Amino acid sequence: MNAHEKSDLRAFFEPRAIAVVGSLNESGGLGYTAIRNMRRFHFAGSIYPINPSYKEALGLKAYPDVTAVEDPIDLAVVITPKQTVPGIIDQCARKGVKAAIVVSDGFAESGETGARLQRQIVEISHRTGLRIIGPNTIGTLNTDNNLVTNPYFISYDKVYKGNIAYCSQSGIVGAQGQPLKEQAYPISKMCDLGNKCDVDEVDILDYLYQDPQTGVIAMHIEDVRDGHRFINTVRRVAARKPVLLLKPGRTEHGARAVASHTGSLAGSERIYDAAFQQAGAIRLDTWRELWEIPRVFVNQPLPQGNRIAFITFTGGVGVAVVDTAEEGGLAIADFTPATIKRLSRLSPELARNPVDLGPLVAATDNPLPLLKETIAAVLNDSNVDCLTATFYASSNAETPVYMDIIDQIIKKVNKTVSIWIYGTDLAAMEELSRQVQGRGLPAYFDIELAIKALATAARYSGIKSSLAQAPCPLRQEEENDG
Amino acid sequence: MNAHEKSDLRAFFEPRAIAVVGSLNESGGLGYTAIRNMRRFHFAGSIYPINPSYKEALGLKAYPDVTAVEDPIDLAVVITPKQTVPGIIDQCARKGVKAAIVVSDGFAESGETGARLQRQIVEISHRTGLRIIGPNTIGTLNTDNNLVTNPYFISYDKVYKGNIAYCSQSGIVGAQGQPLKEQAYPISKMCDLGNKCDVDEVDILDYLYQDPQTGVIAMHIEDVRDGHRFINTVRRVAARKPVLLLKPGRTEHGARAVASHTGSLAGSERIYDAAFQQAGAIRLDTWRELWEIPRVFVNQPLPQGNRIAFITFTGGVGVAVVDTAEEGGLAIADFTPATIKRLSRLSPELARNPVDLGPLVAATDNPLPLLKETIAAVLNDSNVDCLTATFYASSNAETPVYMDIIDQIIKKVNKTVSIWIYGTDLAAMEELSRQVQGRGLPAYFDIELAIKALATAARYSGIKSSLAQAPCPLRQEEENDG
Repeated sequence: MNAHEKSDLRAFFEPRAIAVVGSLNESGGLGYTAIRNMRRFHFAGSIYPINPSYKEALGLKAYPDVTAVEDPIDLAVVITPKQTVPGIIDQCARKGVKAAIVVSDGFAESGETGARLQRQIVEISHRTGLRIIGPNTIGTLNTDNNLVTNPYFISYDKVYKGNIAYCSQSGIVGAQGQPLKEQAYPISKMCDLGNKCDVDEVDILDYLYQDPQTGVIAMHIEDVRDGHRFINTVRRVAARKPVLLLKPGRTEHGARAVASHTGSLAGSERIYDAAFQQAGAIRLDTWRELWEIPRVFVNQPLPQGNRIAFITFTGGVGVAVVDTAEEGGLAIADFTPATIKRLSRLSPELARNPVDLGPLVAATDNPLPLLKETIAAVLNDSNVDCLTATFYASSNAETPVYMDIIDQIIKKVNKTVSIWIYGTDLAAMEELSRQVQGRGLPAYFDIELAIKALATAARYSGIKSSLAQAPCPLRQEEENDG
Repeated sequence: MNAHEKSDLRAFFEPRAIAVVGSLNESGGLGYTAIRNMRRFHFAGSIYPINPSYKEALGLKAYPDVTAVEDPIDLAVVITPKQTVPGIIDQCARKGVKAAIVVSDGFAESGETGARLQRQIVEISHRTGLRIIGPNTIGTLNTDNNLVTNPYFISYDKVYKGNIAYCSQSGIVGAQGQPLKEQAYPISKMCDLGNKCDVDEVDILDYLYQDPQTGVIAMHIEDVRDGHRFINTVRRVAARKPVLLLKPGRTEHGARAVASHTGSLAGSERIYDAAFQQAGAIRLDTWRELWEIPRVFVNQPLPQGNRIAFITFTGGVGVAVVDTAEEGGLAIADFTPATIKRLSRLSPELARNPVDLGPLVAATDNPLPLLKETIAAVLNDSNVDCLTATFYASSNAETPVYMDIIDQIIKKVNKTVSIWIYGTDLAAMEELSRQVQGRGLPAYFDIELAIKALATAARYSGIKSSLAQAPCPLRQEEENDG
């Protein structure tokens, strides 16, 4: 590992001063919009608009180029035509800027001219130690200092602070592409790696490994450049934090599409699967899972085993989820005699897992005390490691009782829980979901996601133990490398 | 097939007069709630409350038992303690009631006492020709006459009329369990089969086959009682209408859970898979798919082949969906030289499939004309059978332009289209989705669902052709049986 690779990525996420190099046109100029976003999000540092045609932008003094700024600059966000980028990167290096996010596209992903320009900026980076994210990226986001480098219009002004880091090779994983505020994802950092001309997935994993705000890493990658380095790093990270990966290219055409998008060799699917498994990364299947599954790691203990209980109001769903559980590596918990006795007191038919409250609920106009007692019985069963409980929403009237169940029962037992919400009123379901998640429990409208979240938590729990116990030559090697 | 089996199911869906037998207690009595629901939905027929303790309910004259009603009754909805059900069914038969929905539970699904009671009502059914749906069911729904037999609280008063029939062995597929109104599913009929003591999945398929309002059948079943009859019927139905099936029991424990829930043998997974394939049914994987995939069949032509085009604003997603397409049996369309030329005029980088508009969109403040021209070029390509187009919503301002694209371009080409919606504002996304679906196109927030919908449509197109062309001994046999 050379000096360049050892330099850390803090300037990308924790800059005190940012230069924004790009169009300052008030009607949609990308430099203008980037600064507008930073200010709407209340970024805590200084911002320097850079454009020779402007003296001022958004009330800030503008400079003709970065070298004209007197104060030190940590990060430059470059959003200019591709031909100008090498010159600007060179100026940044001369100014002593530590890091540059190159938003501009048209580089290695689009032909030889772009590839040549990309090689030029990589050469500057290697020569000077200036780190680069991109090109072809929307950059970074940090909820700790309200940093957002995204130069596209964002219709909201806030992302919630939490411990999930989302990292991607696609702009879709960004504030301009997702209702991050409304979905209330609890986020620590975000990063779009773009073309990975310098900073790559391993660098980011290294940074997020050390980042105290990050507790779980959800990452979309199209390829891995250095398999050995990737496996070593993921093993080290996964011993401390879950690493969840969405990696397209499962099929032959998918692999070819990856190669065409990133200009790199996608690699064989089986090799990736083996590498991820060896590294202790957990592979996800859909974009929805990339966003939603990490919630299970936000504020909960890891399951001590893989035995799931499921409490439902409808037998048909209880039956169907057994498949999802088993496919995810979970076992259907066998209740202890004590639990069976406790549930049988409510009704003999409840005393099996999945617990179907449906018939009892149908026979009462106040089913929630029944749900509370059932959750208490099941969660306190020593044969149960994790639970998916069903919350039903037809109006906001039920919400306080559900919150009481969370506060009085679920939060008092050290087990992993996911909540499946269904009902007849979308607004009530969404409000209930917000409140459940506000209390640190993951809530899902899709039952399969609720189960898969627990399966992922149980799987990570196993990975973490085995990485902790394993004789770890890879770790030592990695530490020697560092 | 005996006379009993030949009697049709119209009384369950098209009754002129319904007797509701159950508690008329105004605070949550299930008979009372059933009648309340019928009236709020504006059911077109007569309703007779049946309960010896009441003279009147909801302004309707109440009767001590069904035989006391002078007018003919087509359908009885029975929601009374299980011990009373055989007597009530017997009264219904004597009164000449054609059909009974037995909502009550505690029958074959819960032990020997219940199983004996269930055998008693089956015996009456076989002896008298009275057909029974249930027990352990929420019954039927018909948007053509606003029938809803559901006895649980429903927080809305309307389900949209359309051509999707949803049928299930679980109450979750019902108006008390889903925001049917807000989701605006275009529905013809719904049915919860419950314990299938008499009417089963094959009877319902037969009815829906003939039902002019039904164009596509989405069915959750836990088991099939008579494989031969099922395969013959599905083959006949699938030659006319898509049959989409969600069938739990994929895993060993899943199969055991099915057996425990329905009291029947679940059967081997491989046998089911083979049977579904032979029958021309298409198997779905999740509850979300059961609800959302049928939308692709609502108001669109079937694809003439399996070649998909995809237009995206973000290359990373374009790459990732290639996997989903290929796994669903779709091929990535190769554009004709004419299309490549037309797209190249916009930008050379557009001229490949998936079409990534991202870089162009980033460089303009009005990307929608570009999207319109791209969709026109791609849809008019003779190598393209179906298209997933991306609509982005950050506010409601864009909606009219998208509607213009649908009206002026998509609706004028006879190809199958699904829309993937993403964006930063949930309310705008939901409004756009409603408007897209109001124009008969399926819209999805999950890209994988948008692709899978087209894959399902293409697969059904192939099934339909092969069933139409196949020498069809099974069909003749079925007709001889009838």
